[in-house]
Amino acid sequence: MTKRFLLAAVAALALPLPAFAQTAPDPAALRDAALKDDIAWDITEGLTTEIGQRLAATEAEARARAWSVAKLEAMGFRNVRIETFKMPVWVRGEETAEVLGPHAQKLTITALGRSGSTGPKGVEAEIAYFPTMADLQAAPAGSLTGKIAFISHSMVATQDGSHYGVFGAARRSGPQIAASKGAVAVLIRSIGTDYHRNPHTGGTNWAEGTKPIAAAALSLPDAEQLQRLLKRGPVRMRLLITPQFKGEGESGNVIAEVPGSDPDAGIVLIGGHLDSWDIGTGAIDDATGVAIAAAAAKRVMDAGQPRRTIRVVWFGAEEPGGFGGEAYAKAHANERHVLATESDFGADRIWKFDVNLPEGAKGIGDRLATVLGPLGISRGNAVAGGGTDVGPILRTGVPSISLHQSGLRYFDYHHTPDDTLDKVDPEQLRQNVAAWTAMTAIVANAPEDIGTVRPGRGE
Amino acid sequence: MTKRFLLAAVAALALPLPAFAQTAPDPAALRDAALKDDIAWDITEGLTTEIGQRLAATEAEARARAWSVAKLEAMGFRNVRIETFKMPVWVRGEETAEVLGPHAQKLTITALGRSGSTGPKGVEAEIAYFPTMADLQAAPAGSLTGKIAFISHSMVATQDGSHYGVFGAARRSGPQIAASKGAVAVLIRSIGTDYHRNPHTGGTNWAEGTKPIAAAALSLPDAEQLQRLLKRGPVRMRLLITPQFKGEGESGNVIAEVPGSDPDAGIVLIGGHLDSWDIGTGAIDDATGVAIAAAAAKRVMDAGQPRRTIRVVWFGAEEPGGFGGEAYAKAHANERHVLATESDFGADRIWKFDVNLPEGAKGIGDRLATVLGPLGISRGNAVAGGGTDVGPILRTGVPSISLHQSGLRYFDYHHTPDDTLDKVDPEQLRQNVAAWTAMTAIVANAPEDIGTVRPGRGE
Repeated sequence: MTKRFLLAAVAALALPLPAFAQTAPDPAALRDAALKDDIAWDITEGLTTEIGQRLAATEAEARARAWSVAKLEAMGFRNVRIETFKMPVWVRGEETAEVLGPHAQKLTITALGRSGSTGPKGVEAEIAYFPTMADLQAAPAGSLTGKIAFISHSMVATQDGSHYGVFGAARRSGPQIAASKGAVAVLIRSIGTDYHRNPHTGGTNWAEGTKPIAAAALSLPDAEQLQRLLKRGPVRMRLLITPQFKGEGESGNVIAEVPGSDPDAGIVLIGGHLDSWDIGTGAIDDATGVAIAAAAAKRVMDAGQPRRTIRVVWFGAEEPGGFGGEAYAKAHANERHVLATESDFGADRIWKFDVNLPEGAKGIGDRLATVLGPLGISRGNAVAGGGTDVGPILRTGVPSISLHQSGLRYFDYHHTPDDTLDKVDPEQLRQNVAAWTAMTAIVANAPEDIGTVRPGRGE
Repeated sequence: MTKRFLLAAVAALALPLPAFAQTAPDPAALRDAALKDDIAWDITEGLTTEIGQRLAATEAEARARAWSVAKLEAMGFRNVRIETFKMPVWVRGEETAEVLGPHAQKLTITALGRSGSTGPKGVEAEIAYFPTMADLQAAPAGSLTGKIAFISHSMVATQDGSHYGVFGAARRSGPQIAASKGAVAVLIRSIGTDYHRNPHTGGTNWAEGTKPIAAAALSLPDAEQLQRLLKRGPVRMRLLITPQFKGEGESGNVIAEVPGSDPDAGIVLIGGHLDSWDIGTGAIDDATGVAIAAAAAKRVMDAGQPRRTIRVVWFGAEEPGGFGGEAYAKAHANERHVLATESDFGADRIWKFDVNLPEGAKGIGDRLATVLGPLGISRGNAVAGGGTDVGPILRTGVPSISLHQSGLRYFDYHHTPDDTLDKVDPEQLRQNVAAWTAMTAIVANAPEDIGTVRPGRGE
């Protein structure tokens, strides 16, 4: 030990540090240990293999909750429980599409979430083609009567995933607009970036009082095939799309905790969503998300009791419309949350983070920048938002930190049959766990008091 | 004109060249012009868009023949005709697979060509897992009674495509072996190299007297999911696979010619196959093949009448077992062919060629090496074989030249729904046309007499 070091140590001991700070683990050490993590892989592999798809409010999602409780208890978390809630149930039926006439051929489709039904006899109609949402919006009222609207768009892969917001409108509101103009059904070019014959599902929204019409996505190869056929002349198609709305069902959030030493310091909520669409096994959407949050919490827990309670929430029913996040915010409105953040964008490398922290807790962002830098993560200049699940709680003024995964591959698999375990890169998953572990440790043990914030964009 | 050039021209005129050689086009010039080709793309786009899938002996394949005749006549070929033949018809039915019990989930399958049926009620049985064909072969007689055999393998992408031969045995003969040991059905890991939920179909073979059992391929993600489930304990599955053998039907070869100036010099046969499996649109297998052959013949035709007749054959019913090639060889046994070669390995860059030429025509191989070198194509040291379609005619001693495309991507798409136009790279397709054009020009105008050969391996 050098003389200089000894003096520094003595000086440090002389500082009036709060008691918890003396035992708080070093986030950098936790980060580096997490680069060898296999907890998140184990959860992702188990959930996607033993349960597979986990459509909200179905028996599969209920089995996933039971699986999750057993897993989280085995990991040593406390207060592991399920908080159920009610929600409308929608399930997929048959879905086929064929071009009629001289170029007769089948096309590959998948119904959008909350699609209406063509009825068991299907519908047969001419295609009305809209290259963009603006073209659809410009179509005169009543001009789609008796037609199948086909909506395309120009989404490409982006690192920040921003094209999903922009071009996703074709899925979220295109069917509603087409229905309002008389369409009997809607086809969209999948909101995706891959060229495999696996269309991308995802929820669509109907205005109050609109009777849902059949709405389905074509894979990109099929959408471009239809465009080529339309260049040759009018196209007539037969669609059979028979999903069902099955009334009210039950879903639930699975919650697990690492109790903190200071009950007044507030709760740090980290999570992801347990449900998935029904056509893949929900690996990147969002088994990896729940796995990353739980792995990070477990690593902080094993390093010693944190100052703040860490609450891991595996939300139910995110895909059909964020029912789990709404139910959570309602049930826990009276608790003090000092952070709420979720992982719901796959598990490719995190490359950037943003924060939304109150003035008195800005130091957390600085410490985060220092510890995440070596992982190849830079500090962004946006106000951290949340996602579907933590959105409702963030809207009450709870601070947030967003760790942004790369979106360059995400929309190749998102909401398709191709969302399977093999799409998860174990090395990139470990980088995610390392970043989440460091972030969770820093916030859970932060000496600052963490107040409320003005919600970021989108909350 | 320089004096030196003039002297060279005079010297050339003094050589005793055969008459045809004075007007034969320069293969290098044809090669370079073909690097701007759009004929092959036009055919590939038209066939895959206007017809789509072209399952042998179905209405779709018949439509494709009519389309082909119109196209080849419009291109200016002579003697355009269809030569029909009879063959057994097999068509796909329903195909679903589900794991039963605590890990209940659906898996994605597609029936193999000539699969038997489970009957409309399906079968329910335990999985017997064989990591390799050797393991299946080692299973005792009767040991699979009442079970579903699941056969895996270790195929990876190879530039020469050789793993298809080795590991493809799981598809070609695995079901027959499993049936002989009592299996009620067979699942195989797709003979493919991609991780998309699109299983690879393809023909399987039954020994004389064996009653076909249901046989289907799992996509790679599904095959690995099943392997993970098997590690956890015995797996019981329900399969519903209901294809049908529909008796005898009609298919046909489409033939077009560029008549040569010397009827005694023999026929140069180049082609590909017109039919496809039913689940994709047969772009790389084999719309590009028929397109490359026709584009090359058209380019040589447009440069002036060749010495030899170039015969373009778009074979029917290759996929279910080479019925078109057999019918052609039988119908044309009395004609003198001096070359027969096909393109049936997609349209990624050609990187190597092999020849099987008689001693007196070895110069053709040397001239080919010179003209193909600038395209990045080297001369291999194997004896050129053929493929399913030209195999029967090659077995009679007809010479061949094989232009080998890269197989590194081929088995990502082969026999899957993903075999669609977007998988064809227009630039690589042009390189193919350039090589085929140069090769066709050289052989069709070769001054040598081209005799017969000892057939290469596999013919």
